[in-house]
Amino acid sequence: MTSSPHPTAGVLLDLDGTLVDSVYQHVVAWHEAFAAAGYDVPQWRIHAGIGMGSDRIVPWLLGRHVDDADDLADDHKRRFLDRVDTLRRTDGALDLLDDLEQRGVPFIISTSAGTDERKALLAVLGREDLPFTDADGVESSKPAPDLLLASCTEAGIDPAQAIMIGDAPWDALAAGRAGIDAIAVRCGGFGDDDLRAAGAKRVVDAPRDLVGQL
Amino acid sequence: MTSSPHPTAGVLLDLDGTLVDSVYQHVVAWHEAFAAAGYDVPQWRIHAGIGMGSDRIVPWLLGRHVDDADDLADDHKRRFLDRVDTLRRTDGALDLLDDLEQRGVPFIISTSAGTDERKALLAVLGREDLPFTDADGVESSKPAPDLLLASCTEAGIDPAQAIMIGDAPWDALAAGRAGIDAIAVRCGGFGDDDLRAAGAKRVVDAPRDLVGQL
Repeated sequence: MTSSPHPTAGVLLDLDGTLVDSVYQHVVAWHEAFAAAGYDVPQWRIHAGIGMGSDRIVPWLLGRHVDDADDLADDHKRRFLDRVDTLRRTDGALDLLDDLEQRGVPFIISTSAGTDERKALLAVLGREDLPFTDADGVESSKPAPDLLLASCTEAGIDPAQAIMIGDAPWDALAAGRAGIDAIAVRCGGFGDDDLRAAGAKRVVDAPRDLVGQL
Repeated sequence: MTSSPHPTAGVLLDLDGTLVDSVYQHVVAWHEAFAAAGYDVPQWRIHAGIGMGSDRIVPWLLGRHVDDADDLADDHKRRFLDRVDTLRRTDGALDLLDDLEQRGVPFIISTSAGTDERKALLAVLGREDLPFTDADGVESSKPAPDLLLASCTEAGIDPAQAIMIGDAPWDALAAGRAGIDAIAVRCGGFGDDDLRAAGAKRVVDAPRDLVGQL
């Protein structure tokens, strides 16, 4: 991990739901994991929690800490990875990456996913070469600012000149806490009002709408 | 089908997503059916289409009529019914039904589901005895007003004194076209702004919030 001596403007990209259409697979995987462990958790509430670190979503949904939280997270991960063949890129995901590269805009993938999920998602993009910070690289997951600030350091990006692109309110919230402007994409299935309430300055459908604009 | 000579106030209840937590299973089932037929349709767009009749959602999502629309709908239905064991009641669904019955408020299930799905959903409620109008009973599906007006006739409810409870913007839109007031529940995972833009007068989390209030 090297840090540029002169941080510049740049872009932080969320992965799940933003570059890969994976939110609904996560909802179903969590729902099944909760059900298997005897918890009845409504799917719309699970959807609302997607984008947080998997260490946070279990107590957030259940309203308390439970002893089997790690087992639940492991079961979710297993069930999610069982569905990787149903994952597709979001609209314009590759075009946005190409655009940033061609114009020399610094960017980094900044994801709450763990190593296995991050690898699977980058494989869906066919871009295992992309720079990233993932959940295994930081102490405190989204909506804490830690991940985004670590990404800035890693990529030599100045947080005050950074833009975060994410699909979840948690992305926008984490960005705000890091002093980073957030743009939201609707392709994770979150509502405009929730995205704006979390601090997103602009809401567009998908990465396609940001090509040439960052 | 009998019609009361003196229509009264009453309640129309959507089933999918409103009384049964089934929207995400529908999204996944449609997504898989589209993928199997070679169509790449984003899941957030499928979610946005849930609540329409299955005759309408295919051309709405693809932007054109396709010859295999009926095959897609059949494949969706098969994949959805394969998941019935993952369906659960929404919060307070049974309590709201009990409440309406105890207070003698006329009500009827008004669903875009076809016969097989409607039966499966009522079985999740454990209430196969409930009065209903389903997609097989009307010419034109939601957001056309036909289904809701047929439900009113069936249950002896005056549309001008009726309330429609649904989770999708399409429910509120159909209600408006039938001259019926709509209340929306968030438990289908739709955003407040979309529900209000479609005409919902009030938005609550789940049927639980309406017990004793209709």
